[in-house]
Amino acid sequence: MGDLLVVGSVALDSVTTPFGKVDEALGGSATYFSYSASFFTRVRLVATVGSDFPEDHVRLLRDRGVDVTGLQRSAGGRTFRWVGEYGYDLNEARTLDTQLNVLATFRPALPDALRRVPYLFLANIDPELQLDVLRQMAERPRLVALDTMNFWIQGKREALLRVLREVDVITINDAEARQLAGEANLIRAARAIAGMGPRVVVVKRGEYGALMLAEDAFFAAPAYPLESVFDPTGAGDTFAGGFMGYLASEGASDGASMRRAVVYGSVMASFTVEDFSLNRLFRLEQPEIAERAAAFQDLMQVNGRGPEERGARGR
Amino acid sequence: MGDLLVVGSVALDSVTTPFGKVDEALGGSATYFSYSASFFTRVRLVATVGSDFPEDHVRLLRDRGVDVTGLQRSAGGRTFRWVGEYGYDLNEARTLDTQLNVLATFRPALPDALRRVPYLFLANIDPELQLDVLRQMAERPRLVALDTMNFWIQGKREALLRVLREVDVITINDAEARQLAGEANLIRAARAIAGMGPRVVVVKRGEYGALMLAEDAFFAAPAYPLESVFDPTGAGDTFAGGFMGYLASEGASDGASMRRAVVYGSVMASFTVEDFSLNRLFRLEQPEIAERAAAFQDLMQVNGRGPEERGARGR
Repeated sequence: MGDLLVVGSVALDSVTTPFGKVDEALGGSATYFSYSASFFTRVRLVATVGSDFPEDHVRLLRDRGVDVTGLQRSAGGRTFRWVGEYGYDLNEARTLDTQLNVLATFRPALPDALRRVPYLFLANIDPELQLDVLRQMAERPRLVALDTMNFWIQGKREALLRVLREVDVITINDAEARQLAGEANLIRAARAIAGMGPRVVVVKRGEYGALMLAEDAFFAAPAYPLESVFDPTGAGDTFAGGFMGYLASEGASDGASMRRAVVYGSVMASFTVEDFSLNRLFRLEQPEIAERAAAFQDLMQVNGRGPEERGARGR
Repeated sequence: MGDLLVVGSVALDSVTTPFGKVDEALGGSATYFSYSASFFTRVRLVATVGSDFPEDHVRLLRDRGVDVTGLQRSAGGRTFRWVGEYGYDLNEARTLDTQLNVLATFRPALPDALRRVPYLFLANIDPELQLDVLRQMAERPRLVALDTMNFWIQGKREALLRVLREVDVITINDAEARQLAGEANLIRAARAIAGMGPRVVVVKRGEYGALMLAEDAFFAAPAYPLESVFDPTGAGDTFAGGFMGYLASEGASDGASMRRAVVYGSVMASFTVEDFSLNRLFRLEQPEIAERAAAFQDLMQVNGRGPEERGARGR
C-alpha cells in the first residue's frame, strides 16, 4: 500500500439543484478526492483554508485517517468559496460566484515527509502550482495524475502543457478534453492529449461514465445507473480519489489495474452524487463499496450470469 | 436459426453532415434494419415504395438474401423522402423536409407465408400500423420488438401504449425514453417504460452507447470508439437489425443472449456511421463483424488482458 498525496482546494460550497440546496457546505477538489481515497489507502492532504474554516470539517477528514498536517490555515484569511447551481440536466454546473480568498495566494509547501510519496494527485488548481509541487518532490513519484478545467486550458495553456509533459495520467471531462485538444471527435481528442505527455487519459463523461485511453487501448465504463441524483458536485474529484486510491492500495500502475481503478472511481462517484456535499460519503460503509463494485461489473458483463444463476430476482 | 420479419419504411434520404452530403440515397428504417440483420439470419421485409424507386436498390437487398416479396410497389406513387442535416454534434438530426408520399396510405398486408415467423420487428411507423401487423400474425411470434419516435409519442400516444402492452422489447433513444415516460431520470424512465409492457427496454444513446433493462437488471454497453463518424442516419435501425438478427440466429430471447445482442447491435451501428447511407454496410465483410465484436468486448473488459498478453502493441 502506497501513500497518496493530493494537492488541491478545500472550499465552502453553496449549491442549488432542482432537488434542494446547501449553504457553505464542505467542498473543494482536494476534499472530495482525499475523503474518497481514504477508503483505499493512506492519504496526505496539502491545501489551504482561512481562519473561518470550521474545525469540525477538519475533524471529519482526520477521522477518516487523512493526514492533514499539510493543511495550511491562513490567520485572518477567508476560505475559498464557490456558489453554483444545476438545472434538470445535471451534467453542467453554472457558476454564480467564485471567491478565491486564501486560494489566490496559495503556494503549496510540501513538508519533508511528503516529498517521497509514491502516488501524487495534482487536483484542479493553477498549473503553475501543479508544476511547483512536482518540482518539490525529492524523487519522481511512481505515478503522477492531474486534473484540470476550462479556466486553465484557456488562461494558462502554456503552463498546463508544461506540466502535462511530466504526468502519467490526466483526468478531464469530455467538453474540456475537446477544448484542450481542439478536436470535436472525443476519440481523436483523447489521442491528441496522450500526445501531450500523459500515457493514460481518463475522460469523465458524467452520467455517461468514463472513457480511458491507456496502453494504446480504450476502456469504456458506464456510470452506475442511479434513480436519484441529487448533486453532481465533486463527482469528478471523488472519481479521481477512488481511481488513485485503488492504484495506491495495490501499488500498481499497469493498464489492467487502471481498468479496475476506473471501476472503483466510478463506484465512489456514484455514491457522492446521491446527496449534497460529502454527505453520502460521510455515512458510507466499507462493504458498500465492494457490493457496488460487484453490481457495477455485472452491469458491464457481456456474458453475464442470467437471473436463474444469480438466484431468481428476474421475472 | 429463426426467420425475422421487419415491417417499416423504405426511403430516399438526402442528408447533409459537416463531412459531406448525399441526395436521394437509399434509406428508411426497414432498409437499415434488414440489411444489418441479413448478416445474421434470413430477413423478410414488408414495406412500400413508389414507382420511382430504383430497381438497383431492391437488388442490393435481394443480393444480401433479404426476402423482398413483401415490398409493395405503388404504381404511380412516389417513394417516402426524408431530408435532414446534422451539425458537429452528430447526436441529433434536424429534419428539413419529410414527404410521406406512398407511406401516407401504407397498410401492411402480410403474405400468408410471413404470418408465422418467430421473430418480428415493428420498425418506426404509425403505432396503429404496428398493432395491425401484430393482429395479422397467425400465431404470437416468439419475440416481438418495436421502435418508435417522438412524433408518435406525442401524436399517437394511446395507440402506442396499446401496442406496447403486446411487445417484448422496445428500442428507443434516450430523449424519447424520457418523453414517453415523462421522467427526466433515464433509469426511472426505463423502469416506467418496462411497466408499460415490454420486458426489455433498450435505450439508444448515440455516441454514448446503449443501456438495456432486462430481467430486472441493467446492462450498459458503450459505443465503439470511432475516430471518424460521417453520418449517424440509420444507426438506431442498424443497431436493431444486429440485435434482432443475432437473437433470431440463436433462436434466443433470454437475458444473457440479449446482452450479446446489444453488443452485435452496437457493432453493426458502428459500421453504418462510418459512411453515408448504407455505403459502409455494402462493403462490409462477415469477418469484420466478429473482429469488431471481439474488440468491443475488450473495450468493456474490466479484467482485460494487458498488452503483454495480447502481444506488445502498447508502449
